[in-house]
Amino acid sequence: MNDHQIGTYKFVASPFHVDFMGRLSIGVLGKHMLNSADAFALERGFDLAEREGEHYTWVLSRLAIEWEDWPRTREEFSIQTWVEKVYRLFADRNFAILNKEGKPIGYARSVWAMISMENRNPVDLLTLHGESLANSVCDRECPIAKPGRIKMSQQTPVSEYVTKYSDLDINGHVNSIKYIEHILDLFSMNTFKEKTLKRFEIAYVAESYYGDTLSFYLEEKSENEFDIEIKRNNQEVVIRSKVIFK
Amino acid sequence: MNDHQIGTYKFVASPFHVDFMGRLSIGVLGKHMLNSADAFALERGFDLAEREGEHYTWVLSRLAIEWEDWPRTREEFSIQTWVEKVYRLFADRNFAILNKEGKPIGYARSVWAMISMENRNPVDLLTLHGESLANSVCDRECPIAKPGRIKMSQQTPVSEYVTKYSDLDINGHVNSIKYIEHILDLFSMNTFKEKTLKRFEIAYVAESYYGDTLSFYLEEKSENEFDIEIKRNNQEVVIRSKVIFK
Repeated sequence: MNDHQIGTYKFVASPFHVDFMGRLSIGVLGKHMLNSADAFALERGFDLAEREGEHYTWVLSRLAIEWEDWPRTREEFSIQTWVEKVYRLFADRNFAILNKEGKPIGYARSVWAMISMENRNPVDLLTLHGESLANSVCDRECPIAKPGRIKMSQQTPVSEYVTKYSDLDINGHVNSIKYIEHILDLFSMNTFKEKTLKRFEIAYVAESYYGDTLSFYLEEKSENEFDIEIKRNNQEVVIRSKVIFK
Repeated sequence: MNDHQIGTYKFVASPFHVDFMGRLSIGVLGKHMLNSADAFALERGFDLAEREGEHYTWVLSRLAIEWEDWPRTREEFSIQTWVEKVYRLFADRNFAILNKEGKPIGYARSVWAMISMENRNPVDLLTLHGESLANSVCDRECPIAKPGRIKMSQQTPVSEYVTKYSDLDINGHVNSIKYIEHILDLFSMNTFKEKTLKRFEIAYVAESYYGDTLSFYLEEKSENEFDIEIKRNNQEVVIRSKVIFK
């Protein structure tokens, strides 16, 4: 099912991968999406890179997901992913979530940069991966809005959390998906009983590390729309996010 | 690769499924093991059951895992699972973790009961699933010790945690794997840098629910061996666990 421009990866919403409503958990979905992006890049030769002794890795800068429906317990589903556009420092990668009949039930947009693992500086994608990346660009439509700007004025955190071993990714930073779980954990069980997640947006502004104290700021924009900001050690903003229920 | 007595399920230790040491995260491994057990039961007709209007489901009672080595980033591995013995109220299910060459790098033992979803009472497995379960019993060896008894005298918790949305499983209880993550999060990043997990044991004594305050009690038995107890709302013991590093 894979062609050069669109990668398709199959999954099952196993019983231990769903939430209390029997819907695929967003953490599992998020990891499947990132792993699909990684597999896509690996298969096409623009995953990790090494040049003149320097090592480069992809980092996720922004992610926006919208759902019409969710894979339920034991249902098969698949994730499709393709590159929409390559800029000098960023690449836009889109995703479709297909239900067991192959019908799209969700879409996502993401923005990635490639950085040096030695000095964390972004590299010029057109120079480093010009051809292999350019050959993968696909004009398939992604019918959801791009991630927007999120502005917060809230000064009092609603909760704090000290990062732990299970929060860390392979680079020793808090992993992209754990932030999403911590953000959704700001909402009550009743919220997830009465409402359904419609859109989730996250901007990865800075990195946080083991033992950091994360403070969560929450602003209710309307009945179903919430902006969230996460700061580390009461200083730097690390995450901005928007959650929309329906 | 599946025969009737032994189920084999293949996985990859994807980059977003490993810890900061590049070793497959125990949470991901645990979910893969439980999903493998579920798939095994489903394929052989003794998964969920319904009889005279009552619905039955499997619940995990005990789990012990031992590792010689870990799948690393992007490595393929597989999980094999088989039933060792069926008692009236419990079934013993074993697991082997095989590396990319098919060599066992870990084993696990688990104990399961089947309970009514209406009144949570255990049912007689021999009556409910007698033949299909009995036909699956396998005499393959599992070369690790059975889960033992864990006794704690520690009266002062080392930490507390209020359960949240992402802790819940499909039944609205804190999910079996989240307890494991919370227990490992009691240890510092340095512990995981300097030591390797050798054996992990957990006994699921009672259930906990959304909003419960979990208190964690920790006792150092020797340099590399720790006993852990989790109580809910300062009363009931819900979990007993043992962690052994090397």
